[in-house]
Amino acid sequence: MRAVDLIRKKRDGGELTRAEIEGLVAAFTRGEVEQYQMSAWLMAAFLRGLSAAELAALTEAMLHSGDVLDFSSLPAPKVDKHSTGGVGDKTSLVIAPVAAAAGLYVPMISGRGLGHTGGTLDKLESIPGFNVNLSLAEFRRVLEKCGCGLIGQTAEIAPADKQLYALRDVTGTVESPNLICASIMSKKLAEGLDALVLDVKTGSGAFMKREEDSVQLAQLMCETGQRMGKRVVALITDMDQPLGRYAGNALEVVECIHILRGELRAGDLYDLCIELAAWMMYLGGRAANVANGKRAAAELVSSGKALEKFSEIVRLQGGDARVCDDMKILPHAKSQVVITAARAGYVNFIACEEIGIAACILGGGRERITDVIDPAVGVVIHKKVGDAVAAGEPLCTVHYNSDARLEEARRRITEAYRIAGAPPAKLRPLVHRVIGS
Amino acid sequence: MRAVDLIRKKRDGGELTRAEIEGLVAAFTRGEVEQYQMSAWLMAAFLRGLSAAELAALTEAMLHSGDVLDFSSLPAPKVDKHSTGGVGDKTSLVIAPVAAAAGLYVPMISGRGLGHTGGTLDKLESIPGFNVNLSLAEFRRVLEKCGCGLIGQTAEIAPADKQLYALRDVTGTVESPNLICASIMSKKLAEGLDALVLDVKTGSGAFMKREEDSVQLAQLMCETGQRMGKRVVALITDMDQPLGRYAGNALEVVECIHILRGELRAGDLYDLCIELAAWMMYLGGRAANVANGKRAAAELVSSGKALEKFSEIVRLQGGDARVCDDMKILPHAKSQVVITAARAGYVNFIACEEIGIAACILGGGRERITDVIDPAVGVVIHKKVGDAVAAGEPLCTVHYNSDARLEEARRRITEAYRIAGAPPAKLRPLVHRVIGS
Repeated sequence: MRAVDLIRKKRDGGELTRAEIEGLVAAFTRGEVEQYQMSAWLMAAFLRGLSAAELAALTEAMLHSGDVLDFSSLPAPKVDKHSTGGVGDKTSLVIAPVAAAAGLYVPMISGRGLGHTGGTLDKLESIPGFNVNLSLAEFRRVLEKCGCGLIGQTAEIAPADKQLYALRDVTGTVESPNLICASIMSKKLAEGLDALVLDVKTGSGAFMKREEDSVQLAQLMCETGQRMGKRVVALITDMDQPLGRYAGNALEVVECIHILRGELRAGDLYDLCIELAAWMMYLGGRAANVANGKRAAAELVSSGKALEKFSEIVRLQGGDARVCDDMKILPHAKSQVVITAARAGYVNFIACEEIGIAACILGGGRERITDVIDPAVGVVIHKKVGDAVAAGEPLCTVHYNSDARLEEARRRITEAYRIAGAPPAKLRPLVHRVIGS
Repeated sequence: MRAVDLIRKKRDGGELTRAEIEGLVAAFTRGEVEQYQMSAWLMAAFLRGLSAAELAALTEAMLHSGDVLDFSSLPAPKVDKHSTGGVGDKTSLVIAPVAAAAGLYVPMISGRGLGHTGGTLDKLESIPGFNVNLSLAEFRRVLEKCGCGLIGQTAEIAPADKQLYALRDVTGTVESPNLICASIMSKKLAEGLDALVLDVKTGSGAFMKREEDSVQLAQLMCETGQRMGKRVVALITDMDQPLGRYAGNALEVVECIHILRGELRAGDLYDLCIELAAWMMYLGGRAANVANGKRAAAELVSSGKALEKFSEIVRLQGGDARVCDDMKILPHAKSQVVITAARAGYVNFIACEEIGIAACILGGGRERITDVIDPAVGVVIHKKVGDAVAAGEPLCTVHYNSDARLEEARRRITEAYRIAGAPPAKLRPLVHRVIGS
């Protein structure tokens, strides 16, 4: 097998065999296929597409480039949720403890924020002491003890994906549904799961702005996971405005603890957490159907059992579990500024990505993966789409520590809001579609 | 300008501006754009194509990555010919002296053989002492003295092309008409030409097997050259069997000297030399039309003036000009073996590329650009397409120095011949089409 022949085959629209894809990924991971060859192959795959068989082979080759965790000895199903990311998307912190409280195992390997989207690891690290860098042995111990662990990707998990993603990032080959699917699924299936719930975002704050693109990605991921014998569903959920009311790492932990304490039992964030947890319970055999799962999830929240589980996870991963009672131990920003409405009317649209970029500019996110973030800063949203607003009434509160780029963040947030004389004709649903069930 | 943005633009079918293409090529040549980024861009350009404006900008950016020769002080038009290459394609050795004898300047920068195709430089180097590695200053002196010089690409000429070609070769991005056009035209236009005749081969021994592909490349090259103010025509000529009767470096010099001595005044090689020289004279203003050019070219051959010019070039470039009178001073192979027809009939087809590969296997060509070649070996073709043949009659004579791969070469040549009971229904024309006139 010569790399150039595999490049030419894909370039000309041919279908690579499983052995060819395995050979290519393995040789690239070993450094025997040059980066300039792999990037040419990735571009050919981007433009020519992959067959379902090629995609499955690619995903499996990436999956088997490293360790695949084996939790088969644990006495209940292993279920996880993965989100394609957005602004204020913090559901993992709620649903992981809910699912664990329901008796499932949730071995969650998460990511960091990049660009306008946040990341679960950064949010968790705003809790004093919380350690996301567990070894796989420690991860297993935490999981065995409390049913849930939340860590970052280790060097052992899908190293091919790490190398491929770094290359795609600088060669314009990120936005391919096939390549995104292989990247996500190779990492998630390395968790040794029985079932997976995918939260595929759509809208102005999502990676995929158009619903048809989100649906396509969701279908690819469901099909790929199902080919590999997993129960997989994907919910296409709305990301046309920030999810919930807090965007920023410590701020989002605050919002999650409010939910887990039963103090916030309505709104898009609460509803989505219950929905996703219900699907996890259904796929994991802890609910006969999704409606039952929703009732059970709400009950686990209102009874305090989910909060108790969250507290246990925090403690087992080295964090200060007093955070559940006293959120003032979280980092908080020195200054706040309120952004008000220039006119009266109704919020018709919020350019969601702009809110995420503003939070990033304040120091809450990264432009490069090596940037250091400020966990305290962020944006609290008072008015969401459909809300009536009086002239001068607060739209958002910006939490900041440095004046340096405050004006740019403030301008972006102000311009993100579109206020009109009438409410929007139709509100977007929270869950657009369910794929693969 | 970030390279990744230019990759994405081309990937999505956008048209890069002249400044963007200039910036990309310049940054790549300086080593500031990574090879893995350039290969991704090349694959995107391969699959998405280039607009005429992009192609012109790319060609010019590659051209201006190095020195552009300025022969404007020379008192007659500068005209060259370029061939896309084939088997037995040796016309340069005849037409360069013919055109120079007609009063034109022919500053010919040529290439070496690679794969199944031969190269002018390798053929010339089989003449004892002939030096193709002149400096640009020496090249100019030879050109001024005798109207013609034949050298290899120097480091000063289109260095971007050199780097891009090396990358394309290993990333499956060679066979793009746009990228081939930019590569050829950037080198040729660096010669400071007024006019250029392109010999675009088509058929089983050509790089482009299908006529429509050859026509497309020819159109791109004509358009690109004309946009840059040059007179350019392209002849689509046949390469479905070896051109002439000799394939192999010294053997091809023999055949050319036969023509220049007036001993071989018919056949495809002679006809094509006269045709190409005529077009050079017409574009260079030395003939009122191509028919006049053909008569003038034939006259320059039969009068011995072209041979005299050839002798002068050989002498000025350090070669032993006695070769014109005594071809025995050329290297010759130790052994010969005759390949005969297994059955009587008519030659209907010769798998031309296989003849070229056989010559390469004997040591006459390269698989890698660093391979050392044997100038003496090759194949003499006795029977061409349409010829009648008796059982046991010679088809070819193989000239070889080593038994090592003789059997493989012999098998390939034998299998290349298809002999049938009747002559082929229709013989392919020598010149299929003329483009750009």
